[in-house]
Amino acid sequence: MSRLTIAELDRFLAEHFPQAHGFGVVEALEVDRVRMRLPFDPRQLRPGGTISGPTLMTLADTAMYFLVLANVGPVALAVTTSLNMTFLRRPAPRDLVAECRRLKLGKRLAVGDVLLYSDGDPEPVAHAVATYAIPPATPGAP
Amino acid sequence: MSRLTIAELDRFLAEHFPQAHGFGVVEALEVDRVRMRLPFDPRQLRPGGTISGPTLMTLADTAMYFLVLANVGPVALAVTTSLNMTFLRRPAPRDLVAECRRLKLGKRLAVGDVLLYSDGDPEPVAHAVATYAIPPATPGAP
Amino acid sequence: MSRLTIAELDRFLAEHFPQAHGFGVVEALEVDRVRMRLPFDPRQLRPGGTISGPTLMTLADTAMYFLVLANVGPVALAVTTSLNMTFLRRPAPRDLVAECRRLKLGKRLAVGDVLLYSDGDPEPVAHAVATYAIPPATPGAP
Amino acid sequence: MSRLTIAELDRFLAEHFPQAHGFGVVEALEVDRVRMRLPFDPRQLRPGGTISGPTLMTLADTAMYFLVLANVGPVALAVTTSLNMTFLRRPAPRDLVAECRRLKLGKRLAVGDVLLYSDGDPEPVAHAVATYAIPPATPGAP
Repeated sequence: MSRLTIAELDRFLAEHFPQAHGFGVVEALEVDRVRMRLPFDPRQLRPGGTISGPTLMTLADTAMYFLVLANVGPVALAVTTSLNMTFLRRPAPRDLVAECRRLKLGKRLAVGDVLLYSDGDPEPVAHAVATYAIPPATPGAP
Repeated sequence: MSRLTIAELDRFLAEHFPQAHGFGVVEALEVDRVRMRLPFDPRQLRPGGTISGPTLMTLADTAMYFLVLANVGPVALAVTTSLNMTFLRRPAPRDLVAECRRLKLGKRLAVGDVLLYSDGDPEPVAHAVATYAIPPATPGAP
Repeated sequence: MSRLTIAELDRFLAEHFPQAHGFGVVEALEVDRVRMRLPFDPRQLRPGGTISGPTLMTLADTAMYFLVLANVGPVALAVTTSLNMTFLRRPAPRDLVAECRRLKLGKRLAVGDVLLYSDGDPEPVAHAVATYAIPPATPGAP
Repeated sequence: MSRLTIAELDRFLAEHFPQAHGFGVVEALEVDRVRMRLPFDPRQLRPGGTISGPTLMTLADTAMYFLVLANVGPVALAVTTSLNMTFLRRPAPRDLVAECRRLKLGKRLAVGDVLLYSDGDPEPVAHAVATYAIPPATPGAP
């Protein structure tokens, strides 16, 4: 079971990451999957009406960070060590939905992948593989 | 529907890739997924009793190649442009099973990811993202 | 020789990417390398005083885009197909410097890698491999 | 300075990795770079006369492993956690040369990238980014 609820995650972010707080809505927070929604905002657009790459990367990285927190509890210091993005289709000017799944939770590294969708379209717009380093002596790490 | 059956794939490989022919067993060949099994062979082992990284990489790359063939038909010339491997756990000295899923089939690029398992263990031993370039004017490309 | 000067690149961006115009300073623009500087701005910071991952990713992606333009001329439609980021050290609250080098310029794909540095520190803070798709019939493509 | 000489590396491999012993020739072994040569062998070929992807991946991974050993001393248990390969050109049926450079040596992770060349051709045939996990309490780790 997740080590924190969506409400607890929200309070943790408000306290430790005020800038990130409010970025996206967590729709599911479990130890093996996280689902997030990023409401559409015209400031995310690039010329051509497509959502920018950095917006997609930030969403993927955030979903994976929340998966780590669901597994080890609220630790501010987990850091991304790699993020491999593959851009598949131009996202439509709509909400983005991220589906993150856990691939590994080790003592020192957590790995997951993320599929990003334009809301309502079954074909993904991007895929990400993210690796996080977990600080030594994190209480919830396996 | 796949543009070739498992039997047709087998004949295609015997003719064009005699070295690869016999590497692994295709258990499912569809346009959106491929399942392969690599029977255990002690020659795949590294010291410590684990299956070597190149064996895992070859299996992931092969499963993705077969997914491309399932989509565009038997074209010898599709080539890997990138293969991102993440090694998750030490594989046991057992059969390996690869589950490849299609992420994108474009005119010029096909992208998929592959989960590799030790037979019987639900936790993956490795994850791969593979991109293939499809030759121009391939009959079956979209 | 680069197909456009730094001044021509600047005008191209002002016209086609007004949002990106002003993001960073191009210090060298050649067919085989691009050097960019991103002046430090406190809004780039995450808690802990480190520059955010999306800032690093945007800089790497932008440097590679400019390398593509140096090779094929001003084409608005080149798009990133993959960006593999490896985060190496926490960047200091200082200017970032990106050194992009060309690995391949093909008819359809361009590949480069980028080292990102905190200004004045010889150890890189991040490494990126970026692949761009070049639109068919781009005048300057090989 | 490297923690072992090329001759010491050779004896270490003969003892711990008899299968890998004899794979390639180490031409330079330093803490920040390794150069290896893989003599051409027709068994590496795929149809079309090109050297197989797994051969390239094995060479890149091996060069990075030797870089880790140069930094932390002879530890059999360092393992690859990720290997991102980008295939740039078809290698010619000639010796392959690998140039590995160190990007990071941390307590727990080492990162490097590798350029692979067909001997005598200045354009690389492939690029790799490799991450190794260093076992806890490795004497030579920083």
